[in-house]
Amino acid sequence: MVDIEGYLQAQKSLVDEALSRYLPPEEHYPSVIFQAMRYSVFAGGKRLRPILALAAAEAVGAAAEDVLPVACALECIHTYSLIHDDLPALDNDDFRRGNLTNHKVFGEANAILAGDALLTFAFELMTDARHWPDGIPACLLQLVYEIAYAIGTFGMIGGQVVDLQMERQEVDLRTLRYIHSHKTGALIRISVRSGAILGGGSPADVEALSEYGAQIGLAFQIMDDVLDVRGDEQLMGKGLRKDEDRQKATYPRLMGLAESEARARAAVEAGITALAPLGERGVLLSELAQFIISRES
Amino acid sequence: MVDIEGYLQAQKSLVDEALSRYLPPEEHYPSVIFQAMRYSVFAGGKRLRPILALAAAEAVGAAAEDVLPVACALECIHTYSLIHDDLPALDNDDFRRGNLTNHKVFGEANAILAGDALLTFAFELMTDARHWPDGIPACLLQLVYEIAYAIGTFGMIGGQVVDLQMERQEVDLRTLRYIHSHKTGALIRISVRSGAILGGGSPADVEALSEYGAQIGLAFQIMDDVLDVRGDEQLMGKGLRKDEDRQKATYPRLMGLAESEARARAAVEAGITALAPLGERGVLLSELAQFIISRES
Repeated sequence: MVDIEGYLQAQKSLVDEALSRYLPPEEHYPSVIFQAMRYSVFAGGKRLRPILALAAAEAVGAAAEDVLPVACALECIHTYSLIHDDLPALDNDDFRRGNLTNHKVFGEANAILAGDALLTFAFELMTDARHWPDGIPACLLQLVYEIAYAIGTFGMIGGQVVDLQMERQEVDLRTLRYIHSHKTGALIRISVRSGAILGGGSPADVEALSEYGAQIGLAFQIMDDVLDVRGDEQLMGKGLRKDEDRQKATYPRLMGLAESEARARAAVEAGITALAPLGERGVLLSELAQFIISRES
Repeated sequence: MVDIEGYLQAQKSLVDEALSRYLPPEEHYPSVIFQAMRYSVFAGGKRLRPILALAAAEAVGAAAEDVLPVACALECIHTYSLIHDDLPALDNDDFRRGNLTNHKVFGEANAILAGDALLTFAFELMTDARHWPDGIPACLLQLVYEIAYAIGTFGMIGGQVVDLQMERQEVDLRTLRYIHSHKTGALIRISVRSGAILGGGSPADVEALSEYGAQIGLAFQIMDDVLDVRGDEQLMGKGLRKDEDRQKATYPRLMGLAESEARARAAVEAGITALAPLGERGVLLSELAQFIISRES
């Protein structure tokens, strides 16, 4: 029996400590931008993406520490996407995880720049030779390419564009799948895949873990939609029922709560099935997948 | 005698053709983001940054074609910074180079995302193995790091933050130098430096060209301020006297037009002096530097 909550807590501490070490201190000039970056990075995220990268690396036999720069870069990318999503011109959200959103604290101009800064910093962090004491991994440049691709117009940004286009529109399942697999799925998949590649996994391991990542990314996003409908506002730390107000494209809206949850479970099962080639090494990732659909926030 | 106008025209064609080849076509789904990216990339820029990268590569004996992916990435980065600068929350500009700004055509949400997309694409472009038919240069990862650093919070974004902070404030020369050397200077310097590094320049060449880049970056920005005061609105393709309306920190505001132009000329001279170690190989860059302060738009 794996103590999944304990594991998550330990990995989160590792990630938090590394993020704080990597990010420039707030005292730097001009301090407002460093404050704004740290504000959102340390606003209570679960660190799912970096933890998945660490867990995938461990599954293929590497140490979590070996992938920390990339894992933390993925969290910076996630945070940038949230800051920009929350802007008045996009989702116009005042709260996230119980805290004021970046632009409510630092103003819209600084929030735009803080998002830009975190995206830029992610690439700086990954390619900074000082963070690779054992030498820069031979696969790193190719990985940077894959990450840029996953978060660009054929990945995360593409999903975001279509999500915005589809507000107040009738959406079919094909479009909804596009939004979910791109807006959320692409970054979660590349997080798992990054850990597998950097950890030195075999091509078969990398493919298995990439498929696992794609499936749990889908499950995670469906559950996000579900929790927006039936979640506890207190636990979630943000206003709920916002998807409905905006008539956002969601699984519950298209097929109801019960069928949505069934699809999330099916995706988790598919993810776990994909882990089969890893045998015992996949147990923890399998538990992580279960955890994703049992979460209440 | 170098035909500098002919040279600029030829290099601009090379860059434009490469940008069009590299950027995804507008037909891709979701097309609005690809349209928005191409709209601003092909809105009449002079391609100064990529041309400087090509010229620096040629100065150290390489072919312009060898540095095209990085040169075009630098132009994508420049374009992203313009799109975000023009947003209502920042400079709130309706026109640039005689065309409507990105958010006036595609809406604010798409403009934010198009900027994000061009920044992301720059990293994808540089690290895409298909663009390096002779193999990925050994120095590329370190160069990607240097570029990320130059356009981040210790470079371009830092300058942008302070520029916004200083509107309607008294600014001293030290702060103004910070803004200029970071907001504009850092990207121009790294453009020259990138060409020198990728072109295989010696350490002495790279240092000389980096100093040249820093100096002409300063000259370029001072002239930008000067042209905002005394330029021809028709030629510039945008509303002028905007710096004054906003009480922006500029050289003319701090020390008048004549002294500003003198400082720009001094920076160009310093840039040309820095080229000394290159001897004859520096002639074209020297002409380019002169061209920067003689421009009227």
